[in-house]
Amino acid sequence: MKYTAPVESTTFLLRDVLKFDNELTEPILNEAAKLCEEVIAPVNQEGDEDGCQYWHNTVGDSSYPEIYIPVCFHDPWEKFRDGGWIGLSIPERFGGQGLPFTLAVAANEYVSSSCMAFSLYPGITRAAIQTLLVSGSEYQKAEFIPKLVTGEWTGTMCLTEPHCGTDLGLLKTKAIQDDAAGGYRITGQKIFITGGEHDLTDNILHLVLARVEGDPEGVKGISLFAVPKFWMNDDKKIRNNVSCGSIEDKMGIHGSPTCQMFFDNAIGILVGERCRGLNAMFVMMNELRLGCAVQGLSQSELAYQNALEYAKERKQGTSMVHRDSGTVPIILHPDVRRMLLDVKCINEASRLLILEAAMLVDDQSDEAQDRLGLMTPVLKGVITDYGVENAIKMQQVWGGHGYVRDNGMEQIVRDARIAMVYEGANGIQALDLVGRKLPKNMGRAITRFFKDSATFLTSSYDKGINHIVQPVTVGLNELKQATEWLAENGLKNPNDAGGASYDYMKMFGLVLLGMAHIKICLATDDKDRHNTAEYFMNRILPETSMLLKRMRFGSETMMKANL
Amino acid sequence: MKYTAPVESTTFLLRDVLKFDNELTEPILNEAAKLCEEVIAPVNQEGDEDGCQYWHNTVGDSSYPEIYIPVCFHDPWEKFRDGGWIGLSIPERFGGQGLPFTLAVAANEYVSSSCMAFSLYPGITRAAIQTLLVSGSEYQKAEFIPKLVTGEWTGTMCLTEPHCGTDLGLLKTKAIQDDAAGGYRITGQKIFITGGEHDLTDNILHLVLARVEGDPEGVKGISLFAVPKFWMNDDKKIRNNVSCGSIEDKMGIHGSPTCQMFFDNAIGILVGERCRGLNAMFVMMNELRLGCAVQGLSQSELAYQNALEYAKERKQGTSMVHRDSGTVPIILHPDVRRMLLDVKCINEASRLLILEAAMLVDDQSDEAQDRLGLMTPVLKGVITDYGVENAIKMQQVWGGHGYVRDNGMEQIVRDARIAMVYEGANGIQALDLVGRKLPKNMGRAITRFFKDSATFLTSSYDKGINHIVQPVTVGLNELKQATEWLAENGLKNPNDAGGASYDYMKMFGLVLLGMAHIKICLATDDKDRHNTAEYFMNRILPETSMLLKRMRFGSETMMKANL
Repeated sequence: MKYTAPVESTTFLLRDVLKFDNELTEPILNEAAKLCEEVIAPVNQEGDEDGCQYWHNTVGDSSYPEIYIPVCFHDPWEKFRDGGWIGLSIPERFGGQGLPFTLAVAANEYVSSSCMAFSLYPGITRAAIQTLLVSGSEYQKAEFIPKLVTGEWTGTMCLTEPHCGTDLGLLKTKAIQDDAAGGYRITGQKIFITGGEHDLTDNILHLVLARVEGDPEGVKGISLFAVPKFWMNDDKKIRNNVSCGSIEDKMGIHGSPTCQMFFDNAIGILVGERCRGLNAMFVMMNELRLGCAVQGLSQSELAYQNALEYAKERKQGTSMVHRDSGTVPIILHPDVRRMLLDVKCINEASRLLILEAAMLVDDQSDEAQDRLGLMTPVLKGVITDYGVENAIKMQQVWGGHGYVRDNGMEQIVRDARIAMVYEGANGIQALDLVGRKLPKNMGRAITRFFKDSATFLTSSYDKGINHIVQPVTVGLNELKQATEWLAENGLKNPNDAGGASYDYMKMFGLVLLGMAHIKICLATDDKDRHNTAEYFMNRILPETSMLLKRMRFGSETMMKANL
Repeated sequence: MKYTAPVESTTFLLRDVLKFDNELTEPILNEAAKLCEEVIAPVNQEGDEDGCQYWHNTVGDSSYPEIYIPVCFHDPWEKFRDGGWIGLSIPERFGGQGLPFTLAVAANEYVSSSCMAFSLYPGITRAAIQTLLVSGSEYQKAEFIPKLVTGEWTGTMCLTEPHCGTDLGLLKTKAIQDDAAGGYRITGQKIFITGGEHDLTDNILHLVLARVEGDPEGVKGISLFAVPKFWMNDDKKIRNNVSCGSIEDKMGIHGSPTCQMFFDNAIGILVGERCRGLNAMFVMMNELRLGCAVQGLSQSELAYQNALEYAKERKQGTSMVHRDSGTVPIILHPDVRRMLLDVKCINEASRLLILEAAMLVDDQSDEAQDRLGLMTPVLKGVITDYGVENAIKMQQVWGGHGYVRDNGMEQIVRDARIAMVYEGANGIQALDLVGRKLPKNMGRAITRFFKDSATFLTSSYDKGINHIVQPVTVGLNELKQATEWLAENGLKNPNDAGGASYDYMKMFGLVLLGMAHIKICLATDDKDRHNTAEYFMNRILPETSMLLKRMRFGSETMMKANL
C-alpha cells in the first residue's frame, strides 16, 4: 500500500476555505506528511500481520501478563514522540507545542491513513490528556500531563464492562475510599480497553470510571479515577494492581491491543468531582468522536489513493466508445470512474467538515458549541459509515486482487470497520443527535443551524455556481421538513424518533457535505473541484429525498414486526 | 455462531408461492438441514481459524507441493459425499439422484450458510460436472462425471491469469496438439483457482481455458480442456504436470484454498468444440453466478439469525416509550429493529427470486431462458452486494462484540465479501445486463419482462394488498423509464450506458424483490410476512426514484473528471 498525505488539499481547505490563518500550517503539515509517508505508513501492513502477543510468564519476577505489540511500531513511536507530535496542541506549560487543535486534527488524518492501529496510541493518550486538562486538579495536571505529552507514558480510557457499553449506568466497578493509600481502591473488570497494556512505554495511566461505594445507582453515581500502572514513590516504582487478563482477537487494527483489564484493589485518585465522572468523560468523548470521523476519512482516503493507482495501471477490456482501442487501463471504464468519484466527492468535503469542527472546538462561544454539538454525532456516524462503504468500493476496483491480503485493500476494510462501533456505535450517534442535541435548549442549536444555513445559501447564489447551490437548497429544505416531522411525531411517539434517527443523521450529513462543496467552489475556480461538486449534487445528494420519505413512514411497521 | 436452516421458508416459497410440486421437497430439505446444522455449521469458525497450509516437501518422493485444508472439513466432506449431496440434481445414469436443480439450489443455501468455505468444494465440482454435461463427449461424461458425483474427485474451473480476469481474450495459456500423448500439451499459469490443490480427494479434474497454437487471438481462439491431476492408465496413476505454486492469503473463505496453478506440458483433452471454450464456460458461469447469489443470501441469513438472537439476549438501555422499564433487550429499540428488518425484508424475497431462477434453469423455453438471462446478472450483483451490506449491518447489532473474531460476525463479512468479486465482479454483471442482455434479440427479453410484469401487477390489484402492489407499480414504471433512457442514450454514447449500468442493475433488483414480496403476500395471509412486505415497500423500494435520477444525470461529469 502506498500513501501520500494530501497536503495540498488540507492547506487549501484551511487557508482558502476556512481562512484559518497560521503561518505554521504548511511547515507542520509537510513535516507530518514526511513522518507519515516515510516512517509510519511502511509499518502498516507488517503491524497488521504481526498483531499483538499476550505473554504470561509465570516463572521468575514478572507475575503480571505482558503484551508485545508489533516490533515495527517501536521505531515510529520513538520518532513520533521525539518529534513532539503527541503534544502538538497541548499547552506549552505542560510540555506541548501550544498549536491550534485544528492543526493536530489535520495532521492526525495523515497518521491515521498511514497506520490506523498505530494512531490509536497517541490518539487515546491525547484523549486522556484532554480529560485531565478539563477535569484534573493542578497537581494531577502537573504530575501526569508532561509524562503523557512526551510519550514516556501512554493513557487509556476505561469505560466499557462486559455487561455495559452503551448503557454505562449499569457499570459495576467499585471504588472504596482508602485514605491510608492516599485515594481510592478500585476493583472491577473493564473490556475493550485500547492500549490497556503494551511494551511501548514504562507506564500507562488508566482513566477509569467506577462507582464509589454508597453513591447512587445509574449514571449519576459514576466517578472518574486516575489509576496508573505504576505509582512513583520517592523515585521507587510501585506496581499497581492492574493487569491485562486477555486481548481480543479482532477483525482489524491488529497492531493495537484491545485489552480486558482487571483492577484488583488498585490505587486510584479521583479526577474531577465525585459523581461527575461521566461529564468528565464526555468532554473527551466528543473529541474521540471527532477522531473517529478522522479515522473514517483516513481509511477512505487511503483506499481511494490505492484504488486510483491500480485503476491507472491495470489494463483490461477495450474502451466502451472506441472498441478498436485495444486493451485500456480500467480507469477509462465509466463504472470504475463511478466508484472512484463516489469516494472522491466524499473525501475532500469530509475533510473540510472535520477541520471546521476542529476549529469550533477552540471556540468557546455558544454559537460554536451549539454547532459543534450537532456536527459531532453527524460526522462520527456518517463519515465512519462512509469509511467502510468507501473502503469496500475501492477494494472492488481491485477485483479479485483486492481480496488478497498482500495487496492491503482488505486490511483497510477491516481497520475502518471499528470506527462505526467504538466511542458510541453509530446508532447511538443518531440517538444523541435526535434525542439530545435537537431538543437541547429548546432547539436553539438546530434553529440557529437552519437560520445560518439559509443565510449562507442565499449569499451563495448568483456567483456562477447556482447549479451547485440549488440542490443543497433542496436538501436543506428536506432536512427542515424532517426536523419538523421529528418535532411533531417524536414527542408523541418516541419510537418514531428512534426509528427515524439513523435516516435523519444521514440526511444531515449529506446536507453538510453539500454545503462543504459550495464552500469549496466559492473558494476556488479549480475546474476539477467544481466537477466533483457537480457529481456529488447529482449522484449522491438526491438520497435526502429518499431518506425523508423513509422517515415519514414512521415506526409502526418496525415496532409490530414479529422479530 | 448458530445456524438453523430456514426449512419453513423454503418449503413455503417452493410449495405455496412457486407451486413447485415435488413430494421429496420436505424430506430432502429436512435431511439437508440436519446435515448442515449438525455436521457442517460446527466447523465454520474452526475452518476459518485453521485455514489452508501450503507444504512443499522437497525430501523424498513428493516432488509436488501439497495443500492441507482444515482437518475439520474431512469428516463433513465424507458425510456430504456419502449422502449423495454432490450429485443431487445430476442424472441418475451418472450416479446422481436425478432430482430437480431447484432442490439442489435450495439445499445449497443451507450448506453455504453453514460454512461458505466448505460449500465451495462441492460447488465448483458441480460446476465442472455441469460443463461436462453440456459440452463433454460421451466418453468424457462416462469417464469423469461419476467420479465427480461420488466425490472421489473434485473439479476446478481454471480461467483467470495474472494479467486477465474480466478480459479473458488476453489469456496466454497455450495448448499444443500431441497425438502421441492422446490430446494436447497445456502450458501456462492460472490464478485464483478455487480448490486447485487439496488433500480431500485423490484426484482433481481441472477444466482449463487455453489457446491452441495458431488459433485466433482474443476470445474467439479459446478452447476448453480437461486436465486431471492424475491420468489413469490401466489402473496405473500417472501424475500430470500440474502443480500449485502458492495459495493466496485472503480476507476470508480461509478454509478454501485459492491456488496459483502451473501447467507445464500437462496432458489435457479437448472438451467441446475447438475455439468454443468460452461458450462452454459460459453455460457453467451462469450457474456459478446464481450460486454467488445463493452465497450472498446465505451469509445475510446467517448474519441475521445471529444478530436476532443477540438482540434478544443483550440488555442495554431502557425502553424509549417507557423510561421506567428498567434495562431491556436491545431488540426493543427501534433503531435495532430497523437494522434487523432491513435485512429480513431482503432475505426471504431474495430466496424466492433465487428459487424462481433455479426453476427457469430447468425450463428450456425461450421465455424462461430470456427471463433467466435478465435475472442472473441482477441476482448475482444485487444479492451479493446485499450479502456484504447486511453482514455489516448485523455485525453492528453486536456493537464492539461484533468486532471480536470469536463471536463470528466479522467472519461473515469477510466470507461474504468474495461473492461481490468472483464469477465476474458486480460491475461486470451490470455491464452484462445493460450491454448484452437488454439489446439481445432486439430487446426481446426485456420487452417480455415488462409485458409480463405489467400483467402480473394488474392481476394483483384488488386482492387486499393494493398498498403492497402500488409501490411496485411505481418502481416498475421507473425501471421502464430507466430502460428507455438507456435505449435512447446508450447507443449514442456508450459511456452513458456504462456509467448508469450499476444503478440500473440495482433498480432492477429492487423491482424484482418488490414483485417477490407481492407473490409472497398473495400466497399467504401471514401477518408478519405482510408487515415485512410493507416495510420493504416504504423503506427500501423508494431507492428506485433516486437511482433513476442519478442515471439520468448521465456520464459527462464522470468522464471529464480529472482522476
